[in-house]
Amino acid sequence: MGGRRSIDLNSDTGESFGPYRLGETATLLQVVTSANVACGFHAGDPRVMAETVELAHRHGVGVGAHVGYPDLVGFGRRAMAADDDEITTDVLYQIGALYAFTRAEGVPLRHVKGHGALYNQAVRDRRIAGALVRGVARFAMPLTLLAPAGSEMVEAAEAVGLPVAFEAFCDRAYRPDGTLVPRAEPASVLHDPEVVAERAVRLARDQEVVAEDGSVIAVPCDTLCIHGDTPGATRVAERVRSALEAAGIPCRALASPAPQPGG
Amino acid sequence: MGGRRSIDLNSDTGESFGPYRLGETATLLQVVTSANVACGFHAGDPRVMAETVELAHRHGVGVGAHVGYPDLVGFGRRAMAADDDEITTDVLYQIGALYAFTRAEGVPLRHVKGHGALYNQAVRDRRIAGALVRGVARFAMPLTLLAPAGSEMVEAAEAVGLPVAFEAFCDRAYRPDGTLVPRAEPASVLHDPEVVAERAVRLARDQEVVAEDGSVIAVPCDTLCIHGDTPGATRVAERVRSALEAAGIPCRALASPAPQPGG
Amino acid sequence: MGGRRSIDLNSDTGESFGPYRLGETATLLQVVTSANVACGFHAGDPRVMAETVELAHRHGVGVGAHVGYPDLVGFGRRAMAADDDEITTDVLYQIGALYAFTRAEGVPLRHVKGHGALYNQAVRDRRIAGALVRGVARFAMPLTLLAPAGSEMVEAAEAVGLPVAFEAFCDRAYRPDGTLVPRAEPASVLHDPEVVAERAVRLARDQEVVAEDGSVIAVPCDTLCIHGDTPGATRVAERVRSALEAAGIPCRALASPAPQPGG
Amino acid sequence: MGGRRSIDLNSDTGESFGPYRLGETATLLQVVTSANVACGFHAGDPRVMAETVELAHRHGVGVGAHVGYPDLVGFGRRAMAADDDEITTDVLYQIGALYAFTRAEGVPLRHVKGHGALYNQAVRDRRIAGALVRGVARFAMPLTLLAPAGSEMVEAAEAVGLPVAFEAFCDRAYRPDGTLVPRAEPASVLHDPEVVAERAVRLARDQEVVAEDGSVIAVPCDTLCIHGDTPGATRVAERVRSALEAAGIPCRALASPAPQPGG
Repeated sequence: MGGRRSIDLNSDTGESFGPYRLGETATLLQVVTSANVACGFHAGDPRVMAETVELAHRHGVGVGAHVGYPDLVGFGRRAMAADDDEITTDVLYQIGALYAFTRAEGVPLRHVKGHGALYNQAVRDRRIAGALVRGVARFAMPLTLLAPAGSEMVEAAEAVGLPVAFEAFCDRAYRPDGTLVPRAEPASVLHDPEVVAERAVRLARDQEVVAEDGSVIAVPCDTLCIHGDTPGATRVAERVRSALEAAGIPCRALASPAPQPGG
Repeated sequence: MGGRRSIDLNSDTGESFGPYRLGETATLLQVVTSANVACGFHAGDPRVMAETVELAHRHGVGVGAHVGYPDLVGFGRRAMAADDDEITTDVLYQIGALYAFTRAEGVPLRHVKGHGALYNQAVRDRRIAGALVRGVARFAMPLTLLAPAGSEMVEAAEAVGLPVAFEAFCDRAYRPDGTLVPRAEPASVLHDPEVVAERAVRLARDQEVVAEDGSVIAVPCDTLCIHGDTPGATRVAERVRSALEAAGIPCRALASPAPQPGG
Repeated sequence: MGGRRSIDLNSDTGESFGPYRLGETATLLQVVTSANVACGFHAGDPRVMAETVELAHRHGVGVGAHVGYPDLVGFGRRAMAADDDEITTDVLYQIGALYAFTRAEGVPLRHVKGHGALYNQAVRDRRIAGALVRGVARFAMPLTLLAPAGSEMVEAAEAVGLPVAFEAFCDRAYRPDGTLVPRAEPASVLHDPEVVAERAVRLARDQEVVAEDGSVIAVPCDTLCIHGDTPGATRVAERVRSALEAAGIPCRALASPAPQPGG
Repeated sequence: MGGRRSIDLNSDTGESFGPYRLGETATLLQVVTSANVACGFHAGDPRVMAETVELAHRHGVGVGAHVGYPDLVGFGRRAMAADDDEITTDVLYQIGALYAFTRAEGVPLRHVKGHGALYNQAVRDRRIAGALVRGVARFAMPLTLLAPAGSEMVEAAEAVGLPVAFEAFCDRAYRPDGTLVPRAEPASVLHDPEVVAERAVRLARDQEVVAEDGSVIAVPCDTLCIHGDTPGATRVAERVRSALEAAGIPCRALASPAPQPGG
């Protein structure tokens, strides 16, 4: 019964800042199909945003806003007790800031993804998921939210009619309940490109993965996350992409939910 | 031969930040017709931006981006040796960030004005004026730049077809050559609301002002700046507006240069 | 059986930033005996720190570092998932920064107090209390930590031999277990200066307070917190001080734990 | 006729920030004798500062504060129109912040060096030099200022009795008047380790260098700057050090001007 016809590969990009370089944006953008671009709160600055959007355009990669907590020194990885309005308006601000660079480059803004602690909290916390979703929805433009199937973000997005692309992680261990094994635990992250590529194919084709207890679980997914801040990220991405294509699954950016005036 | 049929009154707004309140945004927005909204670099934060745009909407005030150097502690008043690309991308980022809040509120973004040191430098410095204008132009949306007639900003804007509204200052002393007396000099700022209102009428109606040497000089103007960060700003604004209306000059926001998709 | 011979009154000061004014530092420093000076992370900047230390010196007020999370826009009031090393080094950095201004002014640095979310978390969370205390202890100078009796901070401080001054709150409602009624609840903050002053006297003289259920509970205290960011803070402070003095309890700064080289 | 008995090698260190790594601090500290440690304004954060001071201690390297403008995204390389008080208090703040980590580590704070635009401006601008020197002097602790012989900083330091170590640059081209060829010009920076090492020996031994026009000019120097943010910095440093030692010139940290209470 077929499986998917195509899959999106998304990666975090544009995480450099001022004099500091981070990640493999330039080479990753030759492999992945969607770029989550940092917006200056947890990483990125206006020059990096302009360069990243331009590079994504050149390689035909879909551009999305990677929105996080305002915590540069902590790289947005520290949970913060922000209230709803703080989350919503911070998200809105970051989407708009990145949107300016997509207009300048003449490409559509396609998606939004939460970063770090904000993403992790919004998976499980209904209040935070709702505040994040409202920030995206208030931008009043067709945008797709990236979120794991079954997460609070998905419920919140569906409640307001915001399109969602289900995201899965081919380099992360899963628990039998479909959640990720936390990074703090050993064996939470898979490093062998062959293993990662094999899981990517199974996720994309069969929408399932082998959990840490050996059971096979369903993981609906439209896009696979390729981590960009680990050394060798590009090599893993290349291996994943070639395995997918060898399995007859083309890699394609998420479609824009609808034509955009600025696109 | 007539003079103007209407004039715009613009004021800096949304300059609060986190726990800090600054200016008289709430009352000023009941008097002026255009709001220059700080975008988080020299002042303002996402909550303040949302509130300010909402208030402007409620009072029918036109919303513009007030873009400045990234120097919160210095309030954007310190000249910085930023290169062209830094200025252009910083401007683009700030315009986009504010644009998000205008989309959320369902109002058009109408204009852009430089703040503090960036504005002052762009008046005289061709390179900086060009970098600022490119930031506005790259947003690729009909926006009007506020700039003094005769300034480098006007030349730079005209070179790329960006609409300009000429700005004049009814509470500042002018030199015979049409430039402002620097703030550091005594008598550079006029405080008497009656005097300010009288100059506003003459500027709006006759497009002229009495310079510090007593000579009458031509000052083409479409919009008058009402300073918002001085105590009693609202009272001065009210006096200016009522004097203008008594003189038969209605106060109206700048027209949008063209219909906006997001507006 | 006597009661105390004297009490310290501490207040948060130096919370202005750049163009923004906050609190009643100038007048409060004429009434209180210890100043908790913001160090630039949650509030304050180098100019404000210099001015505040100078004012404290002029009025003979003891100077301490008010250390918080690096969250200016949130005023340090949002809990952050910072790890131990982040808390310890952030505290150390802030103490050193303020110490520079005490050296410049020729006064000793006497105490350290956590601010906002950091203080609240360190009351109850052993890990955070330990990390905060290590930051103070690593400065290797005789400093007193302000903390409520019975809190995790007190245990952590005693474990490393760091002197503690017990802090109580004369304008906050207490629960029968000695903890504060959270601010989110109604009647958590007392506003009537007479009531506040009366509680201050009972706290200072008898080391006890009437809890919200009417029971009398023991609250050991060496210093009373006078909130500085509420309107009318100075007036409340004056009322508290005169009531204490009328009751024969002089207000005096905490003694330095030991002579300081820089003092 | 004599020459120096020893020379100091200083390098900028601790320029990493949050998730970002910059420079070769760990290996450079095995070669140089003085570390200019970034203090969080143009680079560095409290964790990086703690690690850098610890590493410097382990390798017996003298620790100094590298003070810059508050411009992380611009890495302190952009001139800012800061007023005297802003410069003085920013310098004081940064010195104190680093001092905390030297106390924690049990090592003396030995020197202060301006960074980037602040250094460059303070070489030539008497007002800025004076403001920087006042910031150092107000810390009221025996500290040595690093500055080029003949610069405005030297005059300002001597006027207040602040010790100065003359700094020279073995990898930079000199003009006949003893100033550096600006970086924007071609051939301003020397890259060949052999050439750099040879110039280092001549500077240290003979206090002279060959200027760009071939003339030999006097350059009094106590310390040689080894740039740490260029790739291969450590290799150049090693070549310089071995050439100096082969020429009988030991590399030693600047002496503390006087014993420190905290040291």
